[in-house]
Amino acid sequence: MKKILVLGAGRSATTLIQYLDEHAARGGWRVTVADADEVQLADKTLGLGDTEGRPFEFSRAADRAALIEAHDLVISLLPWTMHTPVARDCLRFGRHLLTASYVSPEMKVLAARARRKGLFFMGELGLDPGLDHMSALRLIREIRETGGEIHHFHSYAGGLVAEDCDTNPWHYKFSWNPRNVVLAGQGMAQYRHEGHPVFQPYHETFRRAFPVRIAGRDRFEVYANRDSLKYESLYGLKGIPSLMRGTVRVRGFSRAWQALITLGLTEALSPLAIPDGLSWAAFIAGLLPERLSRGSLDDRLARYLGLDATDPVMDQLRWLGLLSDQPLGSPGRTAADYLQELLEERWRLAPGDRDLVVMEHRLRYRLGGEDMECRSSLFHEGRDARRTAMADLVGLPLAVTAQLFLAGHLPLPKYPAPFEAVIYDPVMEVLETEGVRFEELRFSLGDSTSELEG
Amino acid sequence: MKKILVLGAGRSATTLIQYLDEHAARGGWRVTVADADEVQLADKTLGLGDTEGRPFEFSRAADRAALIEAHDLVISLLPWTMHTPVARDCLRFGRHLLTASYVSPEMKVLAARARRKGLFFMGELGLDPGLDHMSALRLIREIRETGGEIHHFHSYAGGLVAEDCDTNPWHYKFSWNPRNVVLAGQGMAQYRHEGHPVFQPYHETFRRAFPVRIAGRDRFEVYANRDSLKYESLYGLKGIPSLMRGTVRVRGFSRAWQALITLGLTEALSPLAIPDGLSWAAFIAGLLPERLSRGSLDDRLARYLGLDATDPVMDQLRWLGLLSDQPLGSPGRTAADYLQELLEERWRLAPGDRDLVVMEHRLRYRLGGEDMECRSSLFHEGRDARRTAMADLVGLPLAVTAQLFLAGHLPLPKYPAPFEAVIYDPVMEVLETEGVRFEELRFSLGDSTSELEG
Repeated sequence: MKKILVLGAGRSATTLIQYLDEHAARGGWRVTVADADEVQLADKTLGLGDTEGRPFEFSRAADRAALIEAHDLVISLLPWTMHTPVARDCLRFGRHLLTASYVSPEMKVLAARARRKGLFFMGELGLDPGLDHMSALRLIREIRETGGEIHHFHSYAGGLVAEDCDTNPWHYKFSWNPRNVVLAGQGMAQYRHEGHPVFQPYHETFRRAFPVRIAGRDRFEVYANRDSLKYESLYGLKGIPSLMRGTVRVRGFSRAWQALITLGLTEALSPLAIPDGLSWAAFIAGLLPERLSRGSLDDRLARYLGLDATDPVMDQLRWLGLLSDQPLGSPGRTAADYLQELLEERWRLAPGDRDLVVMEHRLRYRLGGEDMECRSSLFHEGRDARRTAMADLVGLPLAVTAQLFLAGHLPLPKYPAPFEAVIYDPVMEVLETEGVRFEELRFSLGDSTSELEG
Repeated sequence: MKKILVLGAGRSATTLIQYLDEHAARGGWRVTVADADEVQLADKTLGLGDTEGRPFEFSRAADRAALIEAHDLVISLLPWTMHTPVARDCLRFGRHLLTASYVSPEMKVLAARARRKGLFFMGELGLDPGLDHMSALRLIREIRETGGEIHHFHSYAGGLVAEDCDTNPWHYKFSWNPRNVVLAGQGMAQYRHEGHPVFQPYHETFRRAFPVRIAGRDRFEVYANRDSLKYESLYGLKGIPSLMRGTVRVRGFSRAWQALITLGLTEALSPLAIPDGLSWAAFIAGLLPERLSRGSLDDRLARYLGLDATDPVMDQLRWLGLLSDQPLGSPGRTAADYLQELLEERWRLAPGDRDLVVMEHRLRYRLGGEDMECRSSLFHEGRDARRTAMADLVGLPLAVTAQLFLAGHLPLPKYPAPFEAVIYDPVMEVLETEGVRFEELRFSLGDSTSELEG
């Protein structure tokens, strides 16, 4: 009997734990789920036959080490900053390790040592990073195998809310880490367009969002992700003329988010001396230049943002409560902290809400003298606020990789992420049987593409 | 015979070392100057009678400790991140310590321990922080002693270039750390205006610069410094309706700097994948939105920035070389790194150039039923690119404090910065004899102030 340890029982863990429990008897394993939050732990493990919950404090190093030693394979959903100590314990006790986080330089070194000890260490096994790599790499390989020469690679992904549960003017609710949404796009985005490098400073990224149709649905937009160019070598696309990765939102989100950036509300460095009881309206007033000091706050805000009073963005800002009497709360936090607190209230998934994950790869290539495009799209809705699409798509690649590895179907990887066909082919095959399906559309760019444009 | 150790022989050290050497015989001390750069060391110490240079590697802890142990008082001009180990050595061997850097929370703790051991530990003894505190606190006290009730405190300071050495369209050359200039204003600026809190995100700070006349000269502008509100308690101004600190530039600088911010050239987080040989012109092209892709680069840039082709800002940008064929250089650095490299070339003080430091405090107060304003201004030019105003005003407060303390004229401070009259009064008195003089102007705001406005 093998023993699997899942570290972290947060919102991304639901599907992972259920899958591991359902397959425990056939796979010949038992599951321990460890988390500091006992309510969360009970919620995720109660009623499962082959899974037990275990209260766990990450900071107690001896307890952590003993727990890891008592299992064969560890799946960590902890924040990535906690992965290094976990990996060290896994190395020490000869345990396998899977995570959904980006492989840090430190983890890369530890993974190389793990491989020499015959251990399976792998990160980037969630949705993004994870499923994005596996689905893109498979597609790139297929197109090349048929003789296609790829000159354009775009990949879009986003965690959203299902259209019939979309009840607010931002068309957005949180299905994952709110902090990452608030800080999204900070830094300089970079990608390549027809051979030319493109750089986008933060205050331009959301402004330059463009409309796209995904999986045939004409309601999305995309803004550029931070560093698309690192995928050039990761995906074997050296020298490709056009390369971009982007984040998907429902149309209208990015213009309004740009207004929050312009106001400075995503600033995450400077603790603010917020006076006692300062309301959101007074805070916004304090952010507007003095030269705009005439007129109502509503008028001043619209003027500052260069908007008509009737612009939908003004409704979005009002709906958030930026012009309300609601107090900001305790001083000494940053604008991004105050904004995040407000958004967590407003963008909460109601219990019956279903979320939505969309992903689309667009490859253009030359094949037999013809210019072709292939679009491969995933459109995956959750069941409710607990069994979210996000939890499915973060959890299933981890669970399936663990399952296949324990069954002896995966070799040790050269690089600790799912970049090799011997890894991603079998994983993708099982994911498809679990309902994680990409729909493909291939067409010649010589044809009229007007219907598909965007 | 006392022994003074100066750590760091960089550009701020010139005047400090000269003053200490000149006063060595009368003060009864000898001076050691320690620096890793032997050329710099020779330049700063050659020909001085009571001073010797000593090659020094900060990272060699035993060498550093022995050096500190061999002296009575240490003056550190090292980067502030190096102060903690120096302070620990000073505590260990019972040595006094002066620096020109902000007092970090760590240094505050070490200074309290130093005080209990009878040691004099003090930071913020340069220009800003340093001279700004001492001159402002003295003025605040004087006005209060005559019965004035202060309701408005503004304080402006800047390191510039003397008007007759001002040979470029930015009216700026580096007299101190270029990195700080490139990163200036990042974060959220905050101050108070007539009882209302004001918050300024980075992309607004330079846009909202306003013209000022300083020391009677009508050519300056000021932009808000990061956190003015912390001076409320430091300066005993609790509850004051208007409180602002600002940085001085020659008029026209801030609009052009705003253009660099809008372009994203001060972005300091994201390493960029700069293609081999990419020119500044091509880099700028890569920063402009595709929707502006028609017309010459010059036209596109002006259109993006919302400027006429004849706007002086366009000349400033061209003069920097942003539209030139000059290559950016090696990849993997941030936009701020590339910009800094360019600026260090363009804004270098020529050997004969004289720099300029300006500082002005503006206090408004009610006295005997009348509304009054007091302006206290420092206008200090350097001799040449070596003996700069910056080196005078960073070095003299340090040197004079050391001198007065060693002569027994200063008590141990309660707080390790020059906030007490028993410290700043005697220091300011000696600084005046050294030519560091504030000119004062007091006038009633009932009078026509049109001539003084701005």
